[in-house]
Amino acid sequence: MTKNTFDVEDYLYRVKSFHGHLAPGVVIGGYMVHLARTNLPVGVLFDAVSETPACVPDAIQLLTPCTVGNGWLKIINLGRFALSLYDKYHGNGVRVFLDTGKLEQWPEIKAWFLKLKSRKEQNSEEILSQIKQAGVEICGARPVQIKPEFLKKRDKGKIAICSSCGEAYPLKDGSICLACQGSSPYVMP
Amino acid sequence: MTKNTFDVEDYLYRVKSFHGHLAPGVVIGGYMVHLARTNLPVGVLFDAVSETPACVPDAIQLLTPCTVGNGWLKIINLGRFALSLYDKYHGNGVRVFLDTGKLEQWPEIKAWFLKLKSRKEQNSEEILSQIKQAGVEICGARPVQIKPEFLKKRDKGKIAICSSCGEAYPLKDGSICLACQGSSPYVMP
Repeated sequence: MTKNTFDVEDYLYRVKSFHGHLAPGVVIGGYMVHLARTNLPVGVLFDAVSETPACVPDAIQLLTPCTVGNGWLKIINLGRFALSLYDKYHGNGVRVFLDTGKLEQWPEIKAWFLKLKSRKEQNSEEILSQIKQAGVEICGARPVQIKPEFLKKRDKGKIAICSSCGEAYPLKDGSICLACQGSSPYVMP
Repeated sequence: MTKNTFDVEDYLYRVKSFHGHLAPGVVIGGYMVHLARTNLPVGVLFDAVSETPACVPDAIQLLTPCTVGNGWLKIINLGRFALSLYDKYHGNGVRVFLDTGKLEQWPEIKAWFLKLKSRKEQNSEEILSQIKQAGVEICGARPVQIKPEFLKKRDKGKIAICSSCGEAYPLKDGSICLACQGSSPYVMP
């Protein structure tokens, strides 16, 4: 994707392969990322925030160099369908969100987004069709400034061996690792 | 990738494109995902957990159908370099970790993993070479059972409009959205 064009069909093809299916959220997310990039200065090195874990992170990962694993994409779950791209050094950037005030003429998108219809009542094809017609029109964009504490690079600090499980962990987490402290998702930590 | 083969060179090519560079963690992560899949029953529908936000999530996203955005990959930051793949309905699966006890014969991997050398002292090529020689040998695997509460599908519940910012958010988050409650990373929420 170059800065000012968005090849939707190519994107949808990649969504199917990566995300598994054409979820409305990840399709809208593609337009949101496009709009955000269009509002960034050319050539700026940017990081990304997704304000939801749902769909939007995959749009960012497919359309920008930012991934969860390389640390350039952070997910801060604020429950809002929004993302920001910002200068990784100075924190100035743009936030793009799905603007509910612009959904009146797109009833299927509105019903999906605000959960006004059950899944069974929703018409996936019609939602997708409306999303493609609407494009960036249903999004809002505004400048943002990231707080300095969110700009810091994550640093694990000194690595220790957990005396309970025997695995390496960041010493700053405590005298044993977080899993052995009780945060494990497993029946046996 | 089929279940029992791992085309490392193809994977490394895709890592460069997605992750941006051949970070040791994402290369080891590839072997870890491969080992985990080899230990899963054929045909099981699985979800994934990464116990770290660093590198491992990208290996999972590149080598399995699980992504952050489709909800099949969850990141639970326990600070351990480990992942699990598990039956999405029953929670039984396999956990794979980088086993520090197996690193004695791989001094460059050990120095990188336990941060025994500064970044400048590390030799990226030698680390990568040792990782490719070691393959899954430096990993451990054990069966796991995911706690029932982690198997539940995320559900946003009823959607409301935040009276402060005007955006849609999950009503269960409170009378206004989490960003307006103070969790925003922006100078202006």
